[in-house]
Amino acid sequence: MESSSVTTTLITGIAELTTHADPDAGPGTLADAALVVGDDGRVAWTGPAAQAPDADERVDVGGRAVVPGFVDSHAHLVFAGDRAHEFAARMTGAPYGAGGIRTTVAATRAAGDDVLRANLKRLTGEMLRQGTTTVECKSGYGLTVEDEARALRLAREQVEAVTYLGAHVVPAEFKDRPEDYVDLVKGEMLDACAPYADYADVFCERGAFDEEQTREILTAAKGRGLAVRLHANQLGPGPGVRLAVEFGAASADHCTFLDDADVDALAGSQTVATLLPGVEFSTRSPYPDARRLLEAGATVAIATDCNPGSCYTSSMPFCIALAVREMRMSPAEALWAATAGGARALRRTDVGHLAVGARADFAVLDAPSFIHLAYRPGVPLVHRVWKNGTPAV
Amino acid sequence: MESSSVTTTLITGIAELTTHADPDAGPGTLADAALVVGDDGRVAWTGPAAQAPDADERVDVGGRAVVPGFVDSHAHLVFAGDRAHEFAARMTGAPYGAGGIRTTVAATRAAGDDVLRANLKRLTGEMLRQGTTTVECKSGYGLTVEDEARALRLAREQVEAVTYLGAHVVPAEFKDRPEDYVDLVKGEMLDACAPYADYADVFCERGAFDEEQTREILTAAKGRGLAVRLHANQLGPGPGVRLAVEFGAASADHCTFLDDADVDALAGSQTVATLLPGVEFSTRSPYPDARRLLEAGATVAIATDCNPGSCYTSSMPFCIALAVREMRMSPAEALWAATAGGARALRRTDVGHLAVGARADFAVLDAPSFIHLAYRPGVPLVHRVWKNGTPAV
Repeated sequence: MESSSVTTTLITGIAELTTHADPDAGPGTLADAALVVGDDGRVAWTGPAAQAPDADERVDVGGRAVVPGFVDSHAHLVFAGDRAHEFAARMTGAPYGAGGIRTTVAATRAAGDDVLRANLKRLTGEMLRQGTTTVECKSGYGLTVEDEARALRLAREQVEAVTYLGAHVVPAEFKDRPEDYVDLVKGEMLDACAPYADYADVFCERGAFDEEQTREILTAAKGRGLAVRLHANQLGPGPGVRLAVEFGAASADHCTFLDDADVDALAGSQTVATLLPGVEFSTRSPYPDARRLLEAGATVAIATDCNPGSCYTSSMPFCIALAVREMRMSPAEALWAATAGGARALRRTDVGHLAVGARADFAVLDAPSFIHLAYRPGVPLVHRVWKNGTPAV
Repeated sequence: MESSSVTTTLITGIAELTTHADPDAGPGTLADAALVVGDDGRVAWTGPAAQAPDADERVDVGGRAVVPGFVDSHAHLVFAGDRAHEFAARMTGAPYGAGGIRTTVAATRAAGDDVLRANLKRLTGEMLRQGTTTVECKSGYGLTVEDEARALRLAREQVEAVTYLGAHVVPAEFKDRPEDYVDLVKGEMLDACAPYADYADVFCERGAFDEEQTREILTAAKGRGLAVRLHANQLGPGPGVRLAVEFGAASADHCTFLDDADVDALAGSQTVATLLPGVEFSTRSPYPDARRLLEAGATVAIATDCNPGSCYTSSMPFCIALAVREMRMSPAEALWAATAGGARALRRTDVGHLAVGARADFAVLDAPSFIHLAYRPGVPLVHRVWKNGTPAV
């Protein structure tokens, strides 16, 4: 997964550097800054340009802002086909339901590995060009033992955080016997998938999996040594967030419909509340209440949920702009949530910030400040991207 | 302004071609299409790929969608500085008012021509890379005779539709004698500016210019042979839209607060209702009611309003996504409004569509359908841009 630069590099001309090195120090930006990438591909030094040490090579970014690479902690990238016409129909009046997932399941099962690989490559490339240097990817459009294991194997080739989501929806062939599908997900399918996965996830929602089914699957997954995460409280109130906290999940994702007990549970836990505002944009739904979560003390992440049904954006800058406009996060809170927050949602300490020792993953913006990510919505502002200490875009 | 290719070029591999050639034929898309660019830089032929004629050169766009280049009919690009911190303050609670314009006026007056030229070049380049092939640009951050004329002269160097907006706001030095400023705008300033301008515009709004002042300025501008357009009904109800129709304006822009008489007036006129949803996004304001206008039979355009205060996006794809999500336009209606609609708002017949004889200005999308412009919000989907029959991006 790691590739290293063989020399040290001094990055100069940074108009504004955001490191998130000290979570208690506000946005943590430094004007007229420099950064040294060590020969191990990690951050070796950050500070005022005037005090920068020497290095083997020197790169001037020309008065631009530098931010940590985005950590997109929720995406569904192993699929075939798209659902553009379903989207157009929804935008002109049709409701959004979970049923559309089955359209993508059929297309994905029918696709060869090469088609799925090419789609993954296209989307991860698109993400990288938009500043995302760490991507999580779920299965969930296979829903057979073979197709779920294949999805995870293919995801593992291209991304560094992989989640088993056999419990995305009950497939059509199990419609009349959902318990049999749950048995498969927590039994034979889990056995086949666990070797490729870091996490297990369940879509805990009316129409998908209920509280008891979710408990069974999470228990089995933890028993196999997988960390867990949940799709929780997206389409209505429910037990998802409480289960996530109870099971020590890395993250509860969506969090659109929360009651006071849900907010308190998140605030008193290590479970990150991952908000996916692109979904609310693309399904014309009410946005989650980020301020309530932040004010209660919960840890908030932002991710894209990139998928062909409910949200086909791959753009973390777009999600930051939505977080600011629609969820009333400050630009600094939104940037933190899209970087350090995403890392916490993946239980990663090496990415999402640029403290000394962190992986030198960063985006150089065509802007003097990270505020422009929200101030200039929709504009492709990512000028260059470094990953593992090496220019990647 | 025109540069021509010296040969004919056959564009093949078009998965979906939108021409807007026949306004009565719905979205007017053709699958598996081809397009021939003539040696005059104009569209020479469009139709099914299987029937395509031969040409001197051949370019395969690889199964992508092709749409007419966007026509951004409302932008303010001659300025210096930015207002990122004002934006951040507004998003975390401060209200938006017209006062911020004066911040940019001070910075613009203080800037040298080279600074203003470089900013214009940066923004028009950004627009071109996002598929915009025709840009309108207003003055309005000079507000002295010399500074307004300079702004228009500099705009004329880089864009093809130029609007005199001396009546953007009453500058601080005329605060206690606004009528003197109106006299200047319709007198000496108009004399100095008219040679560089195609249109005159007035910000007709409480806090800017009232009905009588607007009448005076529009009358003088028309007397000098300028076409007129108006900033109308943005921040509240008012006389702007009715004045626009009465004066035969090419466009009434913003149209956020309309009553039945305003809608009827637009529907019964040649005045285009130009909606600027990026402004509502960036000021957290209610969106205009596009459906009411469309259903009444008004002609609707979409533009960015790119400016450093109320909306600093330069992205027509982003505005299309907003038009669909927030204003309930269909993807086809939004695309039409961003191309053919923009052209009508500029009274141009040569751009905004790809009928035979139109300027060969088009965007090749990294997508199989134009629907993806709304389906994939925030994602940079513009793969290549042709302008005047020549690859420009």
